Amino acid sequence: MNIWRINTRTQSLTIQPSPETWQHLGGRGLLARILVDEVPATCEPLGAKNKLIFAPGLMVGHRLSSCDRISIGGKSPLTGGVKESNAGGTTGLAITHIGIKALILEDKPDDDEWQIIHLSDAVEFEPAGDLVGLGVFEATPRLLEKYGKHVAIALIGPGGEMELRAAGIQNLDKDRIPSRIAARGGLGALMGSKRIKAIVIDFSGGVKPPITDQTAFRAAQKTYSKSLMGSPQIATYHDYGTAIMVNMTNHFGSLPTCGFSEGQFEGAERIGGENMREILLARGGESNPSHACMPGCTIQCSNVYGGEDGKTLVSPLEYETIGLLGSNLGIDDLDVIARLSWEISDLGLDTIDVGAALGVAAQAGLVDWGDGTRVSELISEIRAGTPLGRILGNGAATTGRVLGVERVPVTKGQAMPAYDPRAIKGTGVTYATSPQGADHTCGLTIRAKIKHTDPEGQADLSRGGQISMAGYDTLGVCIFAGFGFAAVPETIPALLNARYGWDVEETILQELGRETLKLEREFNKSAGFTVADDRLPEWMTREPVAPTNEVFDVSEEDLDNVFNW
Amino acid sequence: MNIWRINTRTQSLTIQPSPETWQHLGGRGLLARILVDEVPATCEPLGAKNKLIFAPGLMVGHRLSSCDRISIGGKSPLTGGVKESNAGGTTGLAITHIGIKALILEDKPDDDEWQIIHLSDAVEFEPAGDLVGLGVFEATPRLLEKYGKHVAIALIGPGGEMELRAAGIQNLDKDRIPSRIAARGGLGALMGSKRIKAIVIDFSGGVKPPITDQTAFRAAQKTYSKSLMGSPQIATYHDYGTAIMVNMTNHFGSLPTCGFSEGQFEGAERIGGENMREILLARGGESNPSHACMPGCTIQCSNVYGGEDGKTLVSPLEYETIGLLGSNLGIDDLDVIARLSWEISDLGLDTIDVGAALGVAAQAGLVDWGDGTRVSELISEIRAGTPLGRILGNGAATTGRVLGVERVPVTKGQAMPAYDPRAIKGTGVTYATSPQGADHTCGLTIRAKIKHTDPEGQADLSRGGQISMAGYDTLGVCIFAGFGFAAVPETIPALLNARYGWDVEETILQELGRETLKLEREFNKSAGFTVADDRLPEWMTREPVAPTNEVFDVSEEDLDNVFNW
Repeated sequence: MNIWRINTRTQSLTIQPSPETWQHLGGRGLLARILVDEVPATCEPLGAKNKLIFAPGLMVGHRLSSCDRISIGGKSPLTGGVKESNAGGTTGLAITHIGIKALILEDKPDDDEWQIIHLSDAVEFEPAGDLVGLGVFEATPRLLEKYGKHVAIALIGPGGEMELRAAGIQNLDKDRIPSRIAARGGLGALMGSKRIKAIVIDFSGGVKPPITDQTAFRAAQKTYSKSLMGSPQIATYHDYGTAIMVNMTNHFGSLPTCGFSEGQFEGAERIGGENMREILLARGGESNPSHACMPGCTIQCSNVYGGEDGKTLVSPLEYETIGLLGSNLGIDDLDVIARLSWEISDLGLDTIDVGAALGVAAQAGLVDWGDGTRVSELISEIRAGTPLGRILGNGAATTGRVLGVERVPVTKGQAMPAYDPRAIKGTGVTYATSPQGADHTCGLTIRAKIKHTDPEGQADLSRGGQISMAGYDTLGVCIFAGFGFAAVPETIPALLNARYGWDVEETILQELGRETLKLEREFNKSAGFTVADDRLPEWMTREPVAPTNEVFDVSEEDLDNVFNW
Repeated sequence: MNIWRINTRTQSLTIQPSPETWQHLGGRGLLARILVDEVPATCEPLGAKNKLIFAPGLMVGHRLSSCDRISIGGKSPLTGGVKESNAGGTTGLAITHIGIKALILEDKPDDDEWQIIHLSDAVEFEPAGDLVGLGVFEATPRLLEKYGKHVAIALIGPGGEMELRAAGIQNLDKDRIPSRIAARGGLGALMGSKRIKAIVIDFSGGVKPPITDQTAFRAAQKTYSKSLMGSPQIATYHDYGTAIMVNMTNHFGSLPTCGFSEGQFEGAERIGGENMREILLARGGESNPSHACMPGCTIQCSNVYGGEDGKTLVSPLEYETIGLLGSNLGIDDLDVIARLSWEISDLGLDTIDVGAALGVAAQAGLVDWGDGTRVSELISEIRAGTPLGRILGNGAATTGRVLGVERVPVTKGQAMPAYDPRAIKGTGVTYATSPQGADHTCGLTIRAKIKHTDPEGQADLSRGGQISMAGYDTLGVCIFAGFGFAAVPETIPALLNARYGWDVEETILQELGRETLKLEREFNKSAGFTVADDRLPEWMTREPVAPTNEVFDVSEEDLDNVFNW
C-alpha cells in the first residue's frame, strides 16, 4: 500500500512507500497526520498549498460489513481547521484494491480547464468537457458510459465547481448512484479549487489488500458479523433507516424545528422512519426501505425513496436531511423533503449546512416556514450562482453573517446536525469542542442512559464518544458498526493483527482515537484556533428551547477539560 | 469628569465617578481598558453583552488645534476583536463640556423601536420616528431643526440600521455636516444593534473641562501651536488635503489600483491633490480646498468638494476614499469619486471597506474597472438591502468569501487602506499586527526615510509607529498634530500636567501607547486571536505588485516580535 501523490498543476503522479509514522494509521487519523506533516495550517484553504486527501480506513478493502469507508480531508474551506469527512459507497474499496494507502492531490492548475482524473495502475488527466456544470446525477451516467462499470467515482457538482463552502464530494454507492457524500466542511470546494470534476478509479485490475493471517482474519470477521447481526439497534436501522431518529429526538425535545426555535415538531410523526417505511412499502417499485450503501453491508440503513409512481425521488433520504430540511424548515411532507434533498445533492452540497442556511434565510424573511416551493426556488438560486444563491451555498454561518441573523446554529463555522444541543447536552459538548466543528458523527451521546438535560457529566460522556469515533473513523468503520464491535471488542485488534501482522491490544481503538484527536488539535492550534472556538453560539446559552426549556449550560471549565485525559 | 452609563433596554442613565485605574486614560486607551474590564471578549458583537463606548481623548475639550478627537469603540462586529475608531468634528468637544469622561451604551432593547438619545445634563429617549431609513445627510438637518444648533450629533445611516459590518458612526463637523465618520470596524452596526439612530448632545449649558494650571497650559499650547503652524507637512496638508498622498503613493508603487493588482495608476495625476486644488479653486462657490473638521484646527486638511456649479458634491473627499473608490476601481474622475463617496457616506458606511469590497466585486465580474455608473448601481443595492447589497455592505472580507474571490485585501477581516503593503512594507507590518486589523492610522510608515521595499527593519519601524499612534489616539490628538508635537515633545507632558495636575514625563506618549496596545492585545487574546491572525493574506506573499514587483516578505519571526519591546 503506497502513497500516491498527484500534482494537479503538472498533472504528474508520484508513487512512494508510506513513511514509517504513517503506517499504523488510516482514514481520519492518517489525514490528520498528513495535514500536520505537510499542509501549512495558516494556508488559504482554496489555494495551492492546501491538499485534498483520500485515505481509506485501516480495515477497508475486504467487504467487512460496514467497514469500507473512505475518509476525505484537507484544511477545511468552511471552518479553516482540520477536516475529515467520510463516506460509504465504493471509493474506499476501489482505492485499496489498486494499492493506495492515501491519495494526495496537490497544488492547483494555473488555468481554469476542468479535468477528470482517471486512475488505474497509472494516472491520466482528461478534459472534463461538457460535464462541467452538470449535477452529479447527470454527470455520473456519462462517466460510467465512458469509463465502464468497474469503477468507483468521487465527483463534485456545480456547488463544488463554484467553490461554495457547503460543497461536498459525492461517491458512488454499490448501485453506482452518486449518493454517498463526504458532505461536511466544504471539501467539494477544495476539489473544485484544483479544477477536478471527478476522480474515476478503475479497479477492474485490482486485488484485495494482502492479509497476513487469513484464518485469524476470517475467524474474527465471523465473530464480528454475528455480533453485528444480533444487535437490536441494527435491526431497527435495517428496517427504518436513520429516519428512526425523528421520533427519538422529538421525544427528547431535541428535533430542530423552525430554525432551532423549538425542539418538538407537530409533524414529527409524518416525517419519521416508521411512516417512511410504510410509504415505501406501499409504493413499491424502486422504493426500498433497506438498502446498503457499501457492498457487503448487512446493516442496510440506507434507502431508496420512491414517489407515488414508485420511481426514485432520491436515494437515500437520511435523518439529518429530514431534520434540517424538514422540521427545521417547518416542512412535514416527506415527498417535498425528498425532492429538496435531490436538488441539493445534485448540486453536490451538504444538506445539513444548506438546510441550516435555509433556516437562517427563513428567519431573515426570505421564506415562510413550511413553504417547500419557495425553498426549492432558493435552491435554484444556488444553481444559478446568483448572489443570494452564493450566500446560501456557502452555508449557515455565512448566511447569518450576510443576512444579519444572530440565531445561527454553528460551531467553528459548521452547521449543527439535527440534534438540538440544549436538550442533548453531551452532543452539545461534542459540537463545541470537536476539532471538526459541529458534527454528530464525532461523538453523539443520545443513546447514553443519562439525563440529557443535566449539564454535569456531559463532558466525560462526550470525551469517550469523541475518542471512540475518532478511532472508528481511523479504521474506516461506520458509526453503526460500533454496535457490533461493542459486544466483541476483541475483534478489532484481532482483525488488525491478522491483516497487518501487528500485535496490538484491545485498547487500540482508543489509542488511535486519542492520537487522531491530538493531531487534529495540533493542526487547529497552528491554524489559530483557541478555547474561544470551543463554544456553542451565545444565543444557545441564553435562549431556552421548548419543551425542555433548557439552555446550553455545560460549564466552560468542563468544555476546556474535554481533551485532558 | 464622570462615567455615564446608558442602558438601552431600560432607557436609564447612571452617572458614576471614574474608577481609579481609568483616570489616567482617555480615548483609545480608555476604550481598551473598559473592554477588558467589562465586555466578555467572546461575546456576540451585535448582542446585549457588547457595549458601545464614546471616550474623548485626554486632551479633548479645549479647542487645542487638532486635539479634540472622539474615540468610539466596542468589540468589533467586523473583526471580532477590539475596536477603536476615532473622528474629528464636535462630538469629543461636546461630550467633555457636559462632563463626560466616557459614555457607555449597554444592553439592547427587546423591541425594534428606534430611538434618539438626547443628552444634556440628563438623558431622554425619544422615538426616532420617520428618521428611520434616512441617510445621514437627510436626517441631520431634521435633527438640528428639532434640537437646535448647540448640539453635537453622532448618528448612523441605513447601513448601521441594517447592522452591516462596514457601517460607521458619523459625527458633525464644525459646520454641522455629518461628515466625520468613525468608519472602521462596524461600529455603526453595533449602534444599530442597540436601536439608536442618533445621539444628540446638547452642550449649550456645558463648560470646558477644568484646567489645574491655566498659565502653564497656555504657555504649552502656544509653543505647540507655533510648532504645528511651522511644520512644512502641515502647510501641504492645509493646501492640498490628504489627497496630496496620491502622487506620493503612486511614486512608491503603493497606490491600490484595480483591486490591488498594480501599485501605480495611469490616472493618478487626475485624482491627486494638486489637481483637486486646481479644480476647487477654479469652481469656487462652496468649494474649499482648506476646511477644518474641528473648531480651532489650524491644519484644515479637510475640504469641500464642489461640482461644476460650485455646489457641494461631498465634504470631505479624502485620500483613502480616492484610493479605494478611485484607483482601486480604475476610476480617474474626481467628480465621479465624489458622488460615490457621497452615496456611501450617506448610507453611513466606511468608504475603505466598501471600496475594497467593490474591488472584489469587480474581480468577480460584477463591474468593469472604471465603470462609475455600475459602481453607483451596486451602492444602490446596498441601500435597497438586496442580498448583493448586504454582501457588499458587510465589507471586503465577506464579499470575497461569498463571491469566491481569493484576492481580498484584508487582515483580521478589515480592509486595507490605500497603501499597498507590498511596496510600503512597514505599513504592511502594521496592517498584519495591529490589534485593530488593517488600519493606516495605527502606524503608517510611508514618511520614514528608508527603503520601503526592504523587508529588514520594518518591524522596528512599525513598532515605533504603533506605540506613538496608540498614544496619540489616547490623547485625542489627530495623526497630523504629531507633526507639531514631534518638534516640541515636551509640550505633551506640559499640557497634561497643566490640565490634570499630574507630574508625567516626556515618555508619557509612549507609555500610554504601550499600555493601550497591551490592553488591546489582552482583549484580542481572550477573544481567540493568535499569531495566525497577525498575517497578511497569503496571496500578497505570493503575487508581486508592479512596478516594484515586490511581494510582502517580512519574516514571520519579525511579525511575531513587533510587541516584544
